[in-house]
Amino acid sequence: MYLEKVNSPQDLKKLDISQLPVLAQEIRQKIIEVVSENGGHLASNLGTVELIIALHYVFNAPRDSILFDVGHQAYAHKILTGRKDKINTIRQFGGISGYPNRDESPYDPFTTGHASNTISLAAGVAAARDLLGGNEKVIAILGDGSLTGGLAFEGLNNVGQSQKDLIVILNSNDMSISPNVGSLSKYLNKLISQPIYNRVKDAAHRFVETRLQRMGPRMMKVTERFEEFLKGLIVPGIFFEELGFRYFGPLDGHNVLSLTETFKNIASLKLKEPIFIHVITQKGHGYPPSENNPVAYHGASRFDPKTGTFKKAEDPAKMSYTEAFAGKLLELARQDDKIVAITAAMCEGTGLQEFRKQLPKKFFDVGIAEAHAVCFASGLAHKGFKPVVAIYSTFLQRAYDQILADVSMQKLPVIFALDRAGIVGADGMSHQGLFDIAYLRHVPDMVVMAPKDIAELKDMLAFAVSLNQAVAIRYPKEDVLVENGLPQEKLVLGNPQVIKNGNDILLLALGSMVMPALQAAQELEKEGISAEVVNARFAKPLNPEIFIKEISKFKKIVTLEEGVREGGFGSAILELLHTHPEYKNAIEIKVIHLPSEFLKHGARSLLLKHYGVDAAGITTTIREFVKTSKSGKILNWLSSAIPTKT
Amino acid sequence: MYLEKVNSPQDLKKLDISQLPVLAQEIRQKIIEVVSENGGHLASNLGTVELIIALHYVFNAPRDSILFDVGHQAYAHKILTGRKDKINTIRQFGGISGYPNRDESPYDPFTTGHASNTISLAAGVAAARDLLGGNEKVIAILGDGSLTGGLAFEGLNNVGQSQKDLIVILNSNDMSISPNVGSLSKYLNKLISQPIYNRVKDAAHRFVETRLQRMGPRMMKVTERFEEFLKGLIVPGIFFEELGFRYFGPLDGHNVLSLTETFKNIASLKLKEPIFIHVITQKGHGYPPSENNPVAYHGASRFDPKTGTFKKAEDPAKMSYTEAFAGKLLELARQDDKIVAITAAMCEGTGLQEFRKQLPKKFFDVGIAEAHAVCFASGLAHKGFKPVVAIYSTFLQRAYDQILADVSMQKLPVIFALDRAGIVGADGMSHQGLFDIAYLRHVPDMVVMAPKDIAELKDMLAFAVSLNQAVAIRYPKEDVLVENGLPQEKLVLGNPQVIKNGNDILLLALGSMVMPALQAAQELEKEGISAEVVNARFAKPLNPEIFIKEISKFKKIVTLEEGVREGGFGSAILELLHTHPEYKNAIEIKVIHLPSEFLKHGARSLLLKHYGVDAAGITTTIREFVKTSKSGKILNWLSSAIPTKT
Repeated sequence: MYLEKVNSPQDLKKLDISQLPVLAQEIRQKIIEVVSENGGHLASNLGTVELIIALHYVFNAPRDSILFDVGHQAYAHKILTGRKDKINTIRQFGGISGYPNRDESPYDPFTTGHASNTISLAAGVAAARDLLGGNEKVIAILGDGSLTGGLAFEGLNNVGQSQKDLIVILNSNDMSISPNVGSLSKYLNKLISQPIYNRVKDAAHRFVETRLQRMGPRMMKVTERFEEFLKGLIVPGIFFEELGFRYFGPLDGHNVLSLTETFKNIASLKLKEPIFIHVITQKGHGYPPSENNPVAYHGASRFDPKTGTFKKAEDPAKMSYTEAFAGKLLELARQDDKIVAITAAMCEGTGLQEFRKQLPKKFFDVGIAEAHAVCFASGLAHKGFKPVVAIYSTFLQRAYDQILADVSMQKLPVIFALDRAGIVGADGMSHQGLFDIAYLRHVPDMVVMAPKDIAELKDMLAFAVSLNQAVAIRYPKEDVLVENGLPQEKLVLGNPQVIKNGNDILLLALGSMVMPALQAAQELEKEGISAEVVNARFAKPLNPEIFIKEISKFKKIVTLEEGVREGGFGSAILELLHTHPEYKNAIEIKVIHLPSEFLKHGARSLLLKHYGVDAAGITTTIREFVKTSKSGKILNWLSSAIPTKT
Repeated sequence: MYLEKVNSPQDLKKLDISQLPVLAQEIRQKIIEVVSENGGHLASNLGTVELIIALHYVFNAPRDSILFDVGHQAYAHKILTGRKDKINTIRQFGGISGYPNRDESPYDPFTTGHASNTISLAAGVAAARDLLGGNEKVIAILGDGSLTGGLAFEGLNNVGQSQKDLIVILNSNDMSISPNVGSLSKYLNKLISQPIYNRVKDAAHRFVETRLQRMGPRMMKVTERFEEFLKGLIVPGIFFEELGFRYFGPLDGHNVLSLTETFKNIASLKLKEPIFIHVITQKGHGYPPSENNPVAYHGASRFDPKTGTFKKAEDPAKMSYTEAFAGKLLELARQDDKIVAITAAMCEGTGLQEFRKQLPKKFFDVGIAEAHAVCFASGLAHKGFKPVVAIYSTFLQRAYDQILADVSMQKLPVIFALDRAGIVGADGMSHQGLFDIAYLRHVPDMVVMAPKDIAELKDMLAFAVSLNQAVAIRYPKEDVLVENGLPQEKLVLGNPQVIKNGNDILLLALGSMVMPALQAAQELEKEGISAEVVNARFAKPLNPEIFIKEISKFKKIVTLEEGVREGGFGSAILELLHTHPEYKNAIEIKVIHLPSEFLKHGARSLLLKHYGVDAAGITTTIREFVKTSKSGKILNWLSSAIPTKT
């Protein structure tokens, strides 16, 4: 048991290199244990165990900066950098984060979660080091998935040109970048990385000497083969070499001994230039269920570590918004040739596997490239299609400019399906969908909707494709009752729906807040407070007549939304009232929203409670609001209805 | 005079190919004429004349889609597609746009202005064509500047993988991509593009046959040279070939005859795959003043076409915000080692030429790569630097996610200087800076400021670097008086400044709106309306006590900002009041803002007037607001003060 003794990279360095393979096994076992209990990114973390050990064995974090792209693959890093004893709390409310986090450890230079940014961050760190005259190493590790993101290219392009002393490690685990990887990799590893790159050229020369001289007359044919051979040697390296990097690889990412030796060799070269190390790993390595189905174990729910069987407790009465969206989209696309689906490496996450299978020609997964996805949709819309772009709320932030310049400015009917809007749960800070109402509401002519339930999400999708304008629909990552007894009502652009009548106060709720608002109203009813509950349905546009007529019936109104305050749905109501000042007077408004901060991780239900936006929290807030006048005193017009609690 | 006869691509096709060089000269003359009169993008438009003629001669727009990246280089396209007679109105209020515009012509598939998106848009158009079973060509034209933008890479990567029938034309005009361009280009043009690509291989084979066989023993050395030769042939092509494109080039972009022939040859190959055509052009070609100084003629002001001398009437009493920012930043950076400047291909536009010259080690221009610029800044800030990122308001939209995830979530003190905030002028729709208040205000812990004048901009910059948190400062593209008589007051976070006292109404103005608000107040004073004018200085945070105390003194308040309503400064005031409901009662609020639409082009002063946000427009709005009660009637408390106009 070496892991027992290792609490820091300093401890790790005390081990003999020959002990590293056993340590890798121990860490791997630990990861399987923890993820089977908590859920998490199993496949990617099993793929990086050896790579992370080798890095910490050779380099000197935190003096040297090790930056993980996305960061979902850094569990071994957490285990090796003082967080071994907390690793069983990972992704849980109050526990450590599933991603690197600046507040958690000096070994995490950045709090991460979004893709493709690491080379650029590393470039900044390296530039700072150079200005300060330091010599620390800066190491950016990214998967080949992240490499499709344009920002990664911007980083490579800039680092290559400025010739910064910086190491980029490409963790290639699905062969999308390197079709020529395989049996050659170990050979090339040795060949290329030690002692120097020139061994490649030597090999090429030997090939020419032996083969070409012998074959003589059949030169033409051989030359072709030589060209192929040469290309094979320099590809994919040449791609990165052209960008200004010294390329090493591909390396076997699960041979911790050779990986460690190679890193040592590279470090000993004392190169002061951009280095690109290409490491080949296998997702889910060392755990057969995960090796065989890495997609299922990417973001895994709890499972039995012995068999790999998922423990997910399915409630047959419930369905996720994701599933409802995907089912309805498939149905609509079957009926309408012009409906196509686009996502950005979120096929499973947005529920579109079945769509991909059934209508492959109408399905486009562009990889981690949200900005491209949106422009691509715009191009399709220009030719008369109705593209539905399914991207998580937090990742659509990366296409904000394209939503403005390439969709809205063109007046094109692109539909955005924003999964994971609001509180996302265990993924935490970087993945919360808090800002979409605020960043979409000011987009000219954009319709912004949020459904109160599964049935309404389906209606909204059908409504959206009928509109011929840009539309966003936001919904949370949550399983909810399919049959909830709520009335369904035909959608009309900008019109809300009254869910429950009441006399004392109006609850104007958007999307996921309708149900808890209703529950709060029912609770308050018992206390003698009669609340009217309205399902806003739209954050934009708001039919001014209907909304103002509704609001004018009350002296106190509460708006509820799962998003930040600034520019959110509550703001939209305020803006509306102040555009129609004849209605605003004497109305008191309470805006219930999420805090404008990067909320922590944990189960969605716990976080909703923590931030006071579950039914109980809402009830408390409304009760206080009803009880207090502007001057803090009990209001005359309602005080009689409030049970005395003192 | 061939141009007289050419009003459409159909007319163009009637010309004999031998007449094209003369036509090119005529178009070039026309462009010089128009830009010398109106200002505009001279250098880039002189560079693309032959390319555009050849494209329209060979391909069939608008059936074939021709998409220009950014679009500032499409004047010849406008002239050839029915807009010859309107070209003299270009960039002027009411005239045609300086960029392609969907509303203007069916030859413009998209309204453009931002960079690097064209390959992605074209990919969408091509995907739509394939789904519809069409065979039109889709052609994306971009400059090498645009190629640094990550979105362009996302597009290349996706098109290459999906193997769409699509032509990308790289208009290489600063040799940043192709260091090996030059005397080889014409040779390679012939060699590669006609009759087929295999000629390259033939040449390689011939080289091997002749040289290698003859030289025998000196194989090693020759092999090295062969490798170089081969690399020379396939680079830069191999970069694009690795991305899945068939590469042709480099071509001489000013030889309209060979360019036309090459396009014909490529079209005749009937390839149904991604094609990458590399064209070499010279910025400002054919007009010596512009050839010698393409940067000066990039976005040129009016000039004498004979001499090239700029006509810009400098008012010595005025200074641009740009100049003031740049001067102050240089001053601060000289005093503080930790202050560094970052821009994204906007060195001249943000005024940083002198900074680059004086402090080159502390200056970073990362090219068109806004997202990278922001992450890069974040990396520097992590190591203790105070990076100032100078990017136009409209282009910073492209780094929205990085502002959230890589700056705000990290709690790092990156300073954003947003030039061109508000109405930008002649560049129009895509370049207006309308959204920044709305997209920055909800960013956690972000400070958002706007100065009322030159002196305050300088103060704000000094204040920003002292804060140790993320800050944005927005200011317009405008020359204003250096000495304006306004009081200056020390900045305190969140505190506004009273500029003029008054009794009847409060004008709460942000940044560029302070001066017109004051002028409006002075005008209204003559009419007996006493307005208090407050310089808000901050859109966030707002010191609640001070703002509410100030607001509470009045029954009517007007907020003024140069931005959209949704989530803007006015909304911030509304949110503030409703968080403190004890103060809001009986206050009527009028929010003066720009419309939530992509505003047209024209001189800034004309647009301010057009949208009612110059002093006169503001005066009218306020007068009406003061005069009318909520029910539309004259208010008692003020009616006596208003001169009868009936």
